[in-house]
Amino acid sequence: MDDIQINIAIDAMGGDNSPTKVIKGCEIFLNFNKKIKLIIFGNKNLISNNFLEKYSQMISFVHCEETIADNDVPSSVLRSKKNSSMRKAIEYIKSKKNIGFVSAGNTGAVTALSTILLGTLKNIKRPAFCSMIPTSKGFCIMLDLGANKESNENQLLQFSIMGHAFAKTKNISNPKVAILNIGTEEGKGKEYLQEAYNLINNSFLSNDFIGYIEPDQITMGKADVIVTDGFTGNIALKTAEGLSNFIMNNFKKVFTKNLLNNIAYLILRKDLVRFSNTVNPIKYNGAIVLGLNSVVVKSHGSASPEAFAQALDNCSEFVKKDINKLIIEELKLVNFVND
Amino acid sequence: MDDIQINIAIDAMGGDNSPTKVIKGCEIFLNFNKKIKLIIFGNKNLISNNFLEKYSQMISFVHCEETIADNDVPSSVLRSKKNSSMRKAIEYIKSKKNIGFVSAGNTGAVTALSTILLGTLKNIKRPAFCSMIPTSKGFCIMLDLGANKESNENQLLQFSIMGHAFAKTKNISNPKVAILNIGTEEGKGKEYLQEAYNLINNSFLSNDFIGYIEPDQITMGKADVIVTDGFTGNIALKTAEGLSNFIMNNFKKVFTKNLLNNIAYLILRKDLVRFSNTVNPIKYNGAIVLGLNSVVVKSHGSASPEAFAQALDNCSEFVKKDINKLIIEELKLVNFVND
Repeated sequence: MDDIQINIAIDAMGGDNSPTKVIKGCEIFLNFNKKIKLIIFGNKNLISNNFLEKYSQMISFVHCEETIADNDVPSSVLRSKKNSSMRKAIEYIKSKKNIGFVSAGNTGAVTALSTILLGTLKNIKRPAFCSMIPTSKGFCIMLDLGANKESNENQLLQFSIMGHAFAKTKNISNPKVAILNIGTEEGKGKEYLQEAYNLINNSFLSNDFIGYIEPDQITMGKADVIVTDGFTGNIALKTAEGLSNFIMNNFKKVFTKNLLNNIAYLILRKDLVRFSNTVNPIKYNGAIVLGLNSVVVKSHGSASPEAFAQALDNCSEFVKKDINKLIIEELKLVNFVND
Repeated sequence: MDDIQINIAIDAMGGDNSPTKVIKGCEIFLNFNKKIKLIIFGNKNLISNNFLEKYSQMISFVHCEETIADNDVPSSVLRSKKNSSMRKAIEYIKSKKNIGFVSAGNTGAVTALSTILLGTLKNIKRPAFCSMIPTSKGFCIMLDLGANKESNENQLLQFSIMGHAFAKTKNISNPKVAILNIGTEEGKGKEYLQEAYNLINNSFLSNDFIGYIEPDQITMGKADVIVTDGFTGNIALKTAEGLSNFIMNNFKKVFTKNLLNNIAYLILRKDLVRFSNTVNPIKYNGAIVLGLNSVVVKSHGSASPEAFAQALDNCSEFVKKDINKLIIEELKLVNFVND
């Protein structure tokens, strides 16, 4: 198993400070993963020859004339920029085994291109962004975090199966699945949530299904897998990011206010850093675009090199554990009648 | 102006630990507001005579046989429990001037009963929960936080007008209005949000309208008024509550871990408490149910007596400043063609 050659195709041109940030992230990753091969797609004029030569045993490089910008509209990207690093890398992984793709670029373009070029798994209508979220018990898995503006009850069932399979790659044997809602009583919230409730409750997931969860319970660790539509998931994710920054910035102001406060901070530092590490966004960078006929990982556009390396690490783990095989096996347990 | 007698009708039986909590909250409020009269609706057998006698100059008491429970379904509450403290108090304020109503009880019941019994303002289709949210610049005003499961573009326009008027009661002269969305570019998010964008942009609010805001920008203080549908608003609010508790609990663990950490905490205490006060949920307790033909304030069910007193304080301010008059004046500036 460990002898299988894992490969990762990388769009070097996406995200802030690219390709520099991406290349630095690759270096960090390669220093800890000597056996994984990276195929880097980007503009050769912007990438140092030193890097390419130093790691020539572990990387291949594919020069691409075009770059997809953050403000390119996904619908136009599908028709133009056929030689972009993002598109070329996605085309490269198509139909190959033991390979994944990572980009820190335009989120809409990653979703649109990978959906069109790779296709979705059988019985998966739409892919979903899926990521781990820190909780008091470790983490939970949440999807869709923003791949779709709307989802229906069938898609929520598909998301719950994909999240359930994701949890298994993390060695959670009976992952508790919940639907995000504004109340926990049966009959609460929007109609399609109630229909999703019934669909999941009548599927093979029923034993692991714990019903609705409210957003204030996410961090309590009550659920291992939380499913929601992409609009709602994105709202929850960004609300959490904003509030976390707000609180942390205010604490920093207190710690640096004067010398005495600074001394107090130094006393607390080790324990604060330990907590801060458990919720560190770097640790959680790299959402998988679940439901595609390959492994596609989207890094945050503003990710640091360390965070980009983490996205590469996540990607290699999904490939190694063959997450799609787990999803396909679970999908076979459901009779999909419509969507 | 200061000579007008302000009255508040109170449902004493709603929320955790009621009526004890509510009565304690009334006492705290009365000690700072000698001129406001409270009309308390509740079960006389559960409320101390000492309290009623001590404050007899400032309160009236109305005995009610029935209580609306937290798990009562709003639709059934409309037909039964005609003698509940909540219903009697709402009936009491109907068509009266200089009066408001506060309850910490069943949220759905407060919304349903007050909407049916009091009615909405002309050209307001549905009421909205509206509250202040702490930001790095002070606070912003956000609605709907959960009165409705869905809203359309016309209702978002109505919410933006109501929030704009609310901001004026807080002496913000040109309140910046934004729509909550998952992206800031024009054309982002759901279709009805784009239609709401056009409606607001073509109304008298256009000069104060700053377009879309993403949830991670809420705490940055970019907008004074943020409008959203009740489902999304409730998701954002509860996500923030949960994450805030999670972070604060982890900080508390660090501060109390050992003697040295505790000493460090004591050094920082004053500055930490100052920050903590700016985001204190007590300070923000009491969402107004905006858009009704009266002032209705909903306290959090789990609010402390201090927080309930704050909800009373908010209510008296809305009554004093005649928030509905401000809303009616702004509504006149819009031609409502459909809903």
